[in-house]
Amino acid sequence: MALKKKPVTGMKDILPKEMAIRNYVMNMIRETYGTFGFSAIETPCVEHIENLCSKQGGENEKLIFKIMKRGEKLKLDTAKTENDLTDSGLRYDLTVPLSRYYSNNANELPAPFKALQMGNVWRADRPQRGRFRQFMQCDIDILGEPTYLAEIELVLATTTLLGKLDFHNFTIRINDRRILKAMAQYSGFPAESFDTVFIILDKMDKIGIEGVAEELEKEGFAKESIDTYLGLFREITNDVEGVRYIKEKLSDVLEAGIAEDLETIINTVESVKTADFKMSFDPTLVRGMSYYTGPIFEISMDEFGGSVGGGGRYDEMIGKFTGNNTCACGFSIGFERIVMLLLERGYEIPTKNGKKAYLIEKNMPADKLLNILKQATEERSAGTQINISIMKKNKKFQKDQLAADGYTEYVEFFNRD
Amino acid sequence: MALKKKPVTGMKDILPKEMAIRNYVMNMIRETYGTFGFSAIETPCVEHIENLCSKQGGENEKLIFKIMKRGEKLKLDTAKTENDLTDSGLRYDLTVPLSRYYSNNANELPAPFKALQMGNVWRADRPQRGRFRQFMQCDIDILGEPTYLAEIELVLATTTLLGKLDFHNFTIRINDRRILKAMAQYSGFPAESFDTVFIILDKMDKIGIEGVAEELEKEGFAKESIDTYLGLFREITNDVEGVRYIKEKLSDVLEAGIAEDLETIINTVESVKTADFKMSFDPTLVRGMSYYTGPIFEISMDEFGGSVGGGGRYDEMIGKFTGNNTCACGFSIGFERIVMLLLERGYEIPTKNGKKAYLIEKNMPADKLLNILKQATEERSAGTQINISIMKKNKKFQKDQLAADGYTEYVEFFNRD
Repeated sequence: MALKKKPVTGMKDILPKEMAIRNYVMNMIRETYGTFGFSAIETPCVEHIENLCSKQGGENEKLIFKIMKRGEKLKLDTAKTENDLTDSGLRYDLTVPLSRYYSNNANELPAPFKALQMGNVWRADRPQRGRFRQFMQCDIDILGEPTYLAEIELVLATTTLLGKLDFHNFTIRINDRRILKAMAQYSGFPAESFDTVFIILDKMDKIGIEGVAEELEKEGFAKESIDTYLGLFREITNDVEGVRYIKEKLSDVLEAGIAEDLETIINTVESVKTADFKMSFDPTLVRGMSYYTGPIFEISMDEFGGSVGGGGRYDEMIGKFTGNNTCACGFSIGFERIVMLLLERGYEIPTKNGKKAYLIEKNMPADKLLNILKQATEERSAGTQINISIMKKNKKFQKDQLAADGYTEYVEFFNRD
Repeated sequence: MALKKKPVTGMKDILPKEMAIRNYVMNMIRETYGTFGFSAIETPCVEHIENLCSKQGGENEKLIFKIMKRGEKLKLDTAKTENDLTDSGLRYDLTVPLSRYYSNNANELPAPFKALQMGNVWRADRPQRGRFRQFMQCDIDILGEPTYLAEIELVLATTTLLGKLDFHNFTIRINDRRILKAMAQYSGFPAESFDTVFIILDKMDKIGIEGVAEELEKEGFAKESIDTYLGLFREITNDVEGVRYIKEKLSDVLEAGIAEDLETIINTVESVKTADFKMSFDPTLVRGMSYYTGPIFEISMDEFGGSVGGGGRYDEMIGKFTGNNTCACGFSIGFERIVMLLLERGYEIPTKNGKKAYLIEKNMPADKLLNILKQATEERSAGTQINISIMKKNKKFQKDQLAADGYTEYVEFFNRD
């Protein structure tokens, strides 16, 4: 037979144990974000190729799984390039589809609209350990709220969730795109080089401040600019004092209110938070996606050694669909990383009801089977998980398998009973 | 801008109201099937094109969304047919991927294995009202259980679920593929014509017994065969008496035990059932998929006027992957139809906790906002859904929108408070 047993390259079969954790996390997400007033929505996994290739997705646009046109639309004879063969593809994120969704359905949605999305996305990344070509994303977005209330609520909702999932001692790093730009402007870098500067700055945690200096020099930037720039980073502390320092230093180039708002976000979250984490002002935080326009944030966890989520304000994206700008702010948690961390930790899902296995001797007469099933029905109605199976010759092996599946209690039924 | 607002043809955006029902049904499914010992699993949405085109899927194989090969693998210059351009596609059902999954992971799964799958599938059907090209399927399957315990448990689990979702007075129609064949054989139809006979028989509920007679005659079958065949259908009652009649009449052509097992399934389910439905023996039930090998069943609901789910035994499919046959039996409910019926009915989801909206006057000072957020945090911790938004000039419109979203209680906060 030509049938293939393995999943397609880079994608995975999910076994019951992982699935139980995933479902537990998804329920916790729906419940927690629900209390913050977020409504679950869904977009199709398949999206117009024009929308996917609209330059909103940066590098991700190179990784699209493209779907072939169907029937008469597929003109193989005259097709010159790949793009002649496709009219849709699998979504690579949930933000582009959300923008389309909002522009399509705004009339039926409250304003502001608080959306919760959990869904698979696909990227044809080079397969590597722990990274898959199909993975779940989990985003919350507030559309139509211009004030920092959006940022505060997003950070509170996300951190409350992480706390409930037993994560402690993590950090929410925060910065603002406009501060990022003002610092570069203050230092005298030319505006058209900002992206180059930020790509280098983004490596700070890996190569250190000396490494950043070196790379900036290699790019040929003025010594004075580099010195001024790195001087700022040396002075800034990772707290509201740092924000105040920036505010004073950059008063000529930074629009009024931006530093104050950032300070309020940090202070408010610190006062209201219920989870065990700290807010940290991080002027080196860049975040790749070019569509961000205001505050940006990222979750850091020592036990993971990298980002397990992030987001920010993107006030100009939805306007690309609607023509009218709609302010927007979102926070995405790294669902797959969180599940991986919980699995590695051997996380035990709290269960209300027991799991019990009924083992029935082979060829049980129908009238006796009936009574066993009635008993099972009663226990199931009360919420107990009852797994009924026919007793095997190797009962020990059977019980071991059931134990691995979480069954700890056994009831055996024999024909002679 | 070239960005498209509508979803791709035949797929839909899911609004919060429908999504709430979908999530409620999905939770009920996981909870109910959980008490029957089913474990949730997942396969990738993308499947090998070889597996999708393996003749297991019948007509569905014509409806596959095919994904283009990527990078160097896509050889547009030398491609002669569509198939040269693709190596994978979106799954059109959950049964083919389950068979692959089981053959790939059997060593890590208990035997028998009870799988619960909920996931999207894609079929490029002609778009029509109420039918979409992306839709959710929800299957339970028991792999490795040869006895009728599998059928009984599947029917009990499915009907318990429907009862919990407030469906009443429905019918589970049951038949057996081997009875279907034995009846045709008994009537003298040649074995190679069975499929043609069954396709006509399948129309019984639409064209009646006279219509079936007519079509069989048109196909040129012997008058005697047709008379014998339809005579059987006239005599058979839709209950265990009918099964006993078949058993006696077909004793020469029907393997021993098949009718008895069917009788036991019907009797046991009728005695143990908790939901409000009846089991009905229906010798005209065919079910399209050619892979079924034993009992087959379907759910009929008057309020829908069609099937809202079905399934059966398919003991030979998994062997196509593994080389070793693994007996299997599954039941799929029509998730989208159930959601549609609940939506049409105006189904109210039972909620534990309230939904409360906080309306905050514009430009609330940070220290006052902080206290409001602390109050929200307390209420959210207790499980109440708190939606915080800035008060609008048109407060009435704002409250109407919130009311449409299920918020019935309002708390207003003013700067002067």
